[in-house]
Amino acid sequence: MKALVFDGELKLTECEKPIPKPGEALVRVRLAGICNTDHEITRGYAKDKANKNFSGILGHEVVGVVEKINGDDKSLLGKRVVPEINYGCQTCEWCRRKDYRHCPSRYSMGIRGKDGCFAEYFTIPTELLFEVPDSVTDEQAVFAEPLAAAIEITEQQHIKPKDKTLVLGDGKLGIIIALALGAQGIDVTLVGKHQNKLDIAASQGIKTILKNDLKLEKAWDIVVEATGASSGLETALALVKSLGVIVLKTTTASEMNLNLSAVVVNEITLLGSRCGPFEPAVRLLKAGKLDFAPMISEIFNADKAVEAFEKSKEKGVLKVLLRFSED
Amino acid sequence: MKALVFDGELKLTECEKPIPKPGEALVRVRLAGICNTDHEITRGYAKDKANKNFSGILGHEVVGVVEKINGDDKSLLGKRVVPEINYGCQTCEWCRRKDYRHCPSRYSMGIRGKDGCFAEYFTIPTELLFEVPDSVTDEQAVFAEPLAAAIEITEQQHIKPKDKTLVLGDGKLGIIIALALGAQGIDVTLVGKHQNKLDIAASQGIKTILKNDLKLEKAWDIVVEATGASSGLETALALVKSLGVIVLKTTTASEMNLNLSAVVVNEITLLGSRCGPFEPAVRLLKAGKLDFAPMISEIFNADKAVEAFEKSKEKGVLKVLLRFSED
Repeated sequence: MKALVFDGELKLTECEKPIPKPGEALVRVRLAGICNTDHEITRGYAKDKANKNFSGILGHEVVGVVEKINGDDKSLLGKRVVPEINYGCQTCEWCRRKDYRHCPSRYSMGIRGKDGCFAEYFTIPTELLFEVPDSVTDEQAVFAEPLAAAIEITEQQHIKPKDKTLVLGDGKLGIIIALALGAQGIDVTLVGKHQNKLDIAASQGIKTILKNDLKLEKAWDIVVEATGASSGLETALALVKSLGVIVLKTTTASEMNLNLSAVVVNEITLLGSRCGPFEPAVRLLKAGKLDFAPMISEIFNADKAVEAFEKSKEKGVLKVLLRFSED
Repeated sequence: MKALVFDGELKLTECEKPIPKPGEALVRVRLAGICNTDHEITRGYAKDKANKNFSGILGHEVVGVVEKINGDDKSLLGKRVVPEINYGCQTCEWCRRKDYRHCPSRYSMGIRGKDGCFAEYFTIPTELLFEVPDSVTDEQAVFAEPLAAAIEITEQQHIKPKDKTLVLGDGKLGIIIALALGAQGIDVTLVGKHQNKLDIAASQGIKTILKNDLKLEKAWDIVVEATGASSGLETALALVKSLGVIVLKTTTASEMNLNLSAVVVNEITLLGSRCGPFEPAVRLLKAGKLDFAPMISEIFNADKAVEAFEKSKEKGVLKVLLRFSED
């Protein structure tokens, strides 16, 4: 089968079609999304505990069809699905609570310890699969993973009806977070540097502000830092109220020079936030209140996966998708 | 009256006895405590919004007797009291909720915008005073302010009966935090470099570990960073579990080089924590389950306030107190 592999360099190559282990399903890929984390991996960011960078088939945002199940429960066979991407050791305290996302020995599809979904097929534990409702198109369903990451914010943090929330950064994740918070009835404002990107959120009822027009005053109860830049935290600190919360969504390899005294004096909470739960993501997609279509910059046929990857890195480009099959 | 003044240099000098404004009380000082914040002020740390360092009578830990009240309610006249140290503008959203501690225009006695308590007398709004129960000695009551700061942790953060909490740092605040959390039934362990300081907590039933004996593994639900050093956060990050909370109590003037990716990936919460509520502090003191006497290194007569201040900066010294009067 065709697969986009990174092993120091990025290449579209022929790989063995994977065989599902006991408990796993074989999923035929329809549509997959390229994410900034994929870029980071190709820059050498995704080091595991042994300080080894990921090597293998990339990709962790995907919608596909279950073609084979190695296990007794065949109920998902032939169904369109989206997969959770983290799977744990099954023995630690996290796994006993089915919280695979925090298992220290977890693998993450396409990121750590497990081949990803930029291929005609991938395997994944069947219990990680969520069926996609018929009303949800592939082009929406492929956003389930970043949508889940956006929903993780309210899974971790109670945002009250009277809270004013600001999302910093109009990149892919920033827009998805703003849309997801808006769909949860939260008073949210998206700030960024690009009017055309802000307009995607604005057209769906989200308040937006161009960064140059934003008053630097401590007026926000919750600030979500999704700029992707290490300088974002300093901006967030200038905007969050005393006793407020800064949600950290940016992972960068670069260090920053920081004095956390203001965090102590103003009793700010810095909340690290990463992957999220899929069930509420699929539920929100089904509710049809979100539209990710305007975020799709281009859909490439899988044959042009390397070209698509380069395209996705270009300035101003939002989501680039890879089509592997349409049936 | 005698007062310990800092105006670029520290000196014991004669000042006018202050006159209480409407709403204020005049308090005769019995015993006052020297705190690391006082040291920081004399090093130029306590800058206000205009970037001006505090200048005036130092001191914010105190027990005294109300000698005069400018106001209708005289119920505290002649009573032994401890004062909250922050007072707000009375008009902002924080002050409307009586949360003076977060008013952006607040003053803090002996720290910002208001003379402190290292003097024979000080004035303070009567509503900031808390009566000290007869059963609580001056030597215990003078710890009300740092005890309130310790209690602020559980005011901000739910620490569950099954949570394992580690307090980093066996300085004054670290010990007080460990004792205060222990008195609230929390499973707490104090770690530090000094066996004699750890023993103060251990003798009151707190688990202690010498820093060199501490295993650097992510085994703690809550880590309180009270080392006073900017490197403490890095240690805390090596000790806190995924989804855990690091309470930041250290304010240092120095910046640190930091990569917060681990905070995001492991979904850690960093919680800034400063001053706290006095009512529960007085309640805990009254319950008599805490004993701060072993933390008192020396009590100086106010005539030797400068000498006491120098003593309090010495390595290994814990709390140094200033006695202004005994009646």
